[in-house]
Amino acid sequence: MNYSTMSPSQLKEEYEELNKEYELVLSKGLKLDMSRGKPCKAQLDLTNDMLNSLSDSSDCFSQNGTDYRNYGIMDGIPEAKQLFAPMLNVSEDELIVFGNSSLNIMYDTIIKSMQFGVLGSTPWSKLDKVKFICPVPGYDRHFAICEAMGIEMINVKMNQDGPDMDAVEKLVSEDESIKGIWCVPKYSNPDGITYSDQVVKRMANLKPKANDFRIFWDNAYVVHDFTNPDTLMDIFAELKKNNKQDMIYMFASTSKISFPGSGVAVMAASENNISAIKKMMFFQTISHDKLNQMRHVKFFKNFDGILEHMKKHAEIIMPKFDIVCNTLEKELGPCNIAKWKKPNGGYFVSLFLPDNCAKRTAELCKKAGVVLTGAGATFPYGKDPHDNNLRISPTFPPNHELQEAMNVLCLCSKIAALEQAMK
Amino acid sequence: MNYSTMSPSQLKEEYEELNKEYELVLSKGLKLDMSRGKPCKAQLDLTNDMLNSLSDSSDCFSQNGTDYRNYGIMDGIPEAKQLFAPMLNVSEDELIVFGNSSLNIMYDTIIKSMQFGVLGSTPWSKLDKVKFICPVPGYDRHFAICEAMGIEMINVKMNQDGPDMDAVEKLVSEDESIKGIWCVPKYSNPDGITYSDQVVKRMANLKPKANDFRIFWDNAYVVHDFTNPDTLMDIFAELKKNNKQDMIYMFASTSKISFPGSGVAVMAASENNISAIKKMMFFQTISHDKLNQMRHVKFFKNFDGILEHMKKHAEIIMPKFDIVCNTLEKELGPCNIAKWKKPNGGYFVSLFLPDNCAKRTAELCKKAGVVLTGAGATFPYGKDPHDNNLRISPTFPPNHELQEAMNVLCLCSKIAALEQAMK
Repeated sequence: MNYSTMSPSQLKEEYEELNKEYELVLSKGLKLDMSRGKPCKAQLDLTNDMLNSLSDSSDCFSQNGTDYRNYGIMDGIPEAKQLFAPMLNVSEDELIVFGNSSLNIMYDTIIKSMQFGVLGSTPWSKLDKVKFICPVPGYDRHFAICEAMGIEMINVKMNQDGPDMDAVEKLVSEDESIKGIWCVPKYSNPDGITYSDQVVKRMANLKPKANDFRIFWDNAYVVHDFTNPDTLMDIFAELKKNNKQDMIYMFASTSKISFPGSGVAVMAASENNISAIKKMMFFQTISHDKLNQMRHVKFFKNFDGILEHMKKHAEIIMPKFDIVCNTLEKELGPCNIAKWKKPNGGYFVSLFLPDNCAKRTAELCKKAGVVLTGAGATFPYGKDPHDNNLRISPTFPPNHELQEAMNVLCLCSKIAALEQAMK
Repeated sequence: MNYSTMSPSQLKEEYEELNKEYELVLSKGLKLDMSRGKPCKAQLDLTNDMLNSLSDSSDCFSQNGTDYRNYGIMDGIPEAKQLFAPMLNVSEDELIVFGNSSLNIMYDTIIKSMQFGVLGSTPWSKLDKVKFICPVPGYDRHFAICEAMGIEMINVKMNQDGPDMDAVEKLVSEDESIKGIWCVPKYSNPDGITYSDQVVKRMANLKPKANDFRIFWDNAYVVHDFTNPDTLMDIFAELKKNNKQDMIYMFASTSKISFPGSGVAVMAASENNISAIKKMMFFQTISHDKLNQMRHVKFFKNFDGILEHMKKHAEIIMPKFDIVCNTLEKELGPCNIAKWKKPNGGYFVSLFLPDNCAKRTAELCKKAGVVLTGAGATFPYGKDPHDNNLRISPTFPPNHELQEAMNVLCLCSKIAALEQAMK
């Protein structure tokens, strides 16, 4: 069944066989969605008690009597800072608690850099060219922000231990127009890779030509561990050793911890950066939703409460990752046409097919009623140069639907691979 | 007691008398705050049942089964659109429901205009000069946004029926760099003035030289009526008659209806504008907090529910406005040194003293432990050209403290006026 060793006639025979199967699938009129990294209903139910975690108005006051139902406290209530600071391993002074979306914070951070510059630098919108380094494959929403702002994106390859640091080091040291790099350092979107200590150390010791270069460290899956979790080195501690702590912005949110869209997002950074961010924030808002911050505090109680909660998430979604990876192994393994990594946490499985097969596979899936994240979405401008990467989001569908969708995906992958092989 | 008809020796005598009173006040060591338009505790308590208005997860679903605990629905849940559309008298398609802060929407709207332009116009940050018209006195936070963006502010006088429209019409028709005007059309901050039909009609018929000129219609006090409310003409209907509906952005929020900082903010605009805004929003966020939107829906049920709720607010705060205006009348009326208007709703009383008396009065108050909104704050760049306006915020302090603070304010106003008169 190893396609690479099959004769043309064997390939043709296999192709015809699979097409019959595909016709059968088409006749089923499936409607399955593996397109976005959304928690499933059972995961959301884990947090239901938060809906009433503020039992009455007495739960809306700080210890010293501040009424969180009223205006004020722009940078987040102390109780929420206490809850979330350990998540990013920063002090409470290095943390700002925002609203419901870390994506929104990242967007704001970049549009403000366009408008105001960074710690006194020239506003990026006044420069001829602004570029960001984008480890690929990566998160489509990061790339979309750059595209909206007219920031040129430079692809850098993701290796098994993180971005290709040789390339990153060279780029940032030579090109002053490079102002940032997008990183999802733990269980990266979509590869599920956690940066190695070596990569983190090199990242923390970058010597960018641009003073206003920033690492956008989107630690979206910081506590999203399965039973055998990866460990991510503390980049902020490394940066401090190198006296380069201003070079990073760190982000996280509870979107996939409590309720997506009704969670709490945080940003952590150095004292200099936090001070500058607060100065800009003053013009934008009086405060974020302190009652929702308090809901999270009352529900989780402390950081250990978050970790315990994440174990319950893991129990629900680990079987889904098993379905995905077992099916890939069983269906695609023998054909020798695909690569993937079973992640130890996070939300995605990244599937690498033969070149020129990703779009075709997604197209075949769609026709059969199985929606994937669009092929190419994991690359800047939606352009996968090899057209070989697909992002699988296992969490949302019920297990039996996921199994069915994976069967279809594997079938379509094989058909697409055969089409290429027979060319 | 009419200062304008008193002889120099009478003025001196009065001044010495009042200074003795002031010394007594100083000895009391007061600590009173009339600085911000914050609801008082009793007002916040009106909304306490909203804390648990989502009784369990079954309250988190739309009629057709959409789970509002999960990602999605960027522009607001239909139930919230239904609730708030009547507030601004727009259709649900002309409304977007955002997060917790209308100030944040306004800031975002302007920074995006800087970065991207407006409906295809040149990004404002690429222009040599961008100007906004600021009816004065006005809202300090509006002016702060302009200042942050480097937008030049042009003062236009507030008349008793709204901004001086002769000046506004002339300015916008002649100067292409004028891109906006700030309006708080009902119970204006701080004057409590509601724009007359004539002003609204002229506003809706402006012929700006700049295609990307926008009226920023911050209807912050749209339902914040007392028992004898003002009526604001529907500017959007007028604009539609003139086929100029793209010329306006309308804003409102529940900050002073439900919980400040934990409310819901909305923006309304024409189909063209809404479509452009949604396109930009896509890059910024997946959705705002739908559960908090649903909390408001469950608590208020419909727009009538909001109006009923506002009657309860009025019952609490009308006596506070009585205290302010009765004290002004009793203490300053006879001296003939001040002007103010008792508003029919809103959050503020605007006090006009003799020229060069506002800063001095605020300074005397502060020394006596009474904090007012900083003198000058109601003008762009904090510069009140006549130094004669003070904003009084009666809502937050308990009534007895408010009375005491008003006594001090009146005393300090008289001392400052006498100091000027004796110069």
